[in-house]
Amino acid sequence: MELSSSRLSRLGTKEPPAYNGPVKVSDLGEFGLIARLAAALGDNAPPELILGIGDDAAVWRFTGGCLLATTDTMVEGVHFLPAAAPWADIGWKALAVNISDVAAMGGTPLFALVTLALPTDTPVAAIDQLYAGLRECAREYAVAIAGGDVVQAPQVAVTVALLGRAGEREGRPLLLRRDAARPGDAIAVTGTLGDAAAALRRLREGAPPDGPLARAHLRPRPPLGVGQRAAALGIVCAIDVSDGLLQDIGHICERSGLGADICAPNVPLSPALREAYPDDALALACSGGEDYQLVLAGPAERIQQLRAQSDTPVTIIGEMRESESRAPRLLDEAGGAIHLPALGWDQLRRP
Amino acid sequence: MELSSSRLSRLGTKEPPAYNGPVKVSDLGEFGLIARLAAALGDNAPPELILGIGDDAAVWRFTGGCLLATTDTMVEGVHFLPAAAPWADIGWKALAVNISDVAAMGGTPLFALVTLALPTDTPVAAIDQLYAGLRECAREYAVAIAGGDVVQAPQVAVTVALLGRAGEREGRPLLLRRDAARPGDAIAVTGTLGDAAAALRRLREGAPPDGPLARAHLRPRPPLGVGQRAAALGIVCAIDVSDGLLQDIGHICERSGLGADICAPNVPLSPALREAYPDDALALACSGGEDYQLVLAGPAERIQQLRAQSDTPVTIIGEMRESESRAPRLLDEAGGAIHLPALGWDQLRRP
Repeated sequence: MELSSSRLSRLGTKEPPAYNGPVKVSDLGEFGLIARLAAALGDNAPPELILGIGDDAAVWRFTGGCLLATTDTMVEGVHFLPAAAPWADIGWKALAVNISDVAAMGGTPLFALVTLALPTDTPVAAIDQLYAGLRECAREYAVAIAGGDVVQAPQVAVTVALLGRAGEREGRPLLLRRDAARPGDAIAVTGTLGDAAAALRRLREGAPPDGPLARAHLRPRPPLGVGQRAAALGIVCAIDVSDGLLQDIGHICERSGLGADICAPNVPLSPALREAYPDDALALACSGGEDYQLVLAGPAERIQQLRAQSDTPVTIIGEMRESESRAPRLLDEAGGAIHLPALGWDQLRRP
Repeated sequence: MELSSSRLSRLGTKEPPAYNGPVKVSDLGEFGLIARLAAALGDNAPPELILGIGDDAAVWRFTGGCLLATTDTMVEGVHFLPAAAPWADIGWKALAVNISDVAAMGGTPLFALVTLALPTDTPVAAIDQLYAGLRECAREYAVAIAGGDVVQAPQVAVTVALLGRAGEREGRPLLLRRDAARPGDAIAVTGTLGDAAAALRRLREGAPPDGPLARAHLRPRPPLGVGQRAAALGIVCAIDVSDGLLQDIGHICERSGLGADICAPNVPLSPALREAYPDDALALACSGGEDYQLVLAGPAERIQQLRAQSDTPVTIIGEMRESESRAPRLLDEAGGAIHLPALGWDQLRRP
């Protein structure tokens, strides 16, 4: 649920800023701030809380069932520009990025609360379209809109809180967690990567994207069924690709206490991406983000079963391994390390 | 869940604006927009959705239990000014206004997702304090913080999504609904009203509030136990006072298809309010808002039982009645109508 939204600029630098007064949230960065807030909560979590801050969704034991809860926000000027994306697509995406979190837990989305923050001079037609796109996504994924909030704000923002259900077997939840990878697990990814980031680059270059790149950027389609099948097959580790493949695998590494080797030639790239950016296709796929595909880690034979059962392509791209370093290694065919420029996205770092 | 947050200015006019281009959300107003969005959702709600848009919280049937879900947002510059309220109080209130929604359903809050929207130059100390206040409120009401989101934005905003549980008897949920008032029901209110609005007026006059007025404004304490006891006693109708007593009773009238008579001398006013604004105490109590008390409607004998069982004062202030008009009537001791200037709060109207 941390961060799965589009963005118009990269705030990627990891260098500590010069001291100039009180510590700012940009000094900590998004993940530093989340760790700080999580630590502040202490360890008095109730027994009903199966999984709290630090995974794609929270998991709560509720009267014999297993509830999933996640939330994501899209802010005008930060995560979208109305001039660059139809309002209907903004509505679709605001819900889709939350469905992606539920998919990454192996669950089924149930219902959503939608908060619209709006300037008073927002045209009603824009909100009608935003809501129409949101409803299309809700219908496609069988999500009910159960309520929400409308507040005044200087710019449009859409916050969705999505509730879902985890599958269960013999009273135990079937969850895909970030902290459950084992050494030797195969690492697989759904679909193709980098298309959304390529579309964003096209936009920045002044050319409106079209075709599959635009669709990937504007209307992400989280592979919900793959997550559910993976959980049913006994796979226990996944994350969605929102911040960038390597950064998101890095979260699995951190939480599982392992390293990861990724075989660059195996990273699935679409023909449209290869055509649009032949030289940067791999970099866009590895660190572009916003793919809303799944990364799964599990025994190779189960991943193969999952491949056989899924319409969505499932590609093995690497392996979890024992390592001192939690940074995934990107390797070429000969096993040599590949170094890419920018890695992933942090909301709160300075540009 | 619609709108239960503080505000720094009133946007109360109901006059249609002059035509100047496309229809704006300010032309519809908050409640017009919510009605439009609710209508757009159509009527294909799944059977699990017991109660959707239009009450204090959504109600969802989940594996044998009855789940409550609500969300509220506080935006810097709209709902709070950091200069006028300590960050810790902003954190407290962001959660408390959601607890108020669960109280108004007669339920028990369980866990929350917290979304922080932040400029990158926000001091970490401010967020630490905000979170400390939020945690205090969470501890007081036994709410777990299970997750959330951190996003970059031009100003601070805090969005809380709160999940809760409704009580049940023989498999049926015990709910306090807006649409369940009956003619002849006594109307009762908890605590005293108008204190928070008086504190806000003090702030606008340049004098920082202190004492009970400031506490009511900065640290609202929803009477959770009263709502739960009311539901257990078989009372079935309530709303929380967030937008102003008369406007909120008006929501009960609309949804229940009734009118209401309110006896002005019975509206409970605190000594601090009477002292601060002797002439305007009634107006502040009736249309000030942000009280986060409960209005209940039910048979007089059950309300009396509730009074007897509650530490929080419960005061009968009027009666539901058959009427063509859905606007509550405010009456003096002799039964004459009292007309107050501004009625309630609408986020999206033009000032």
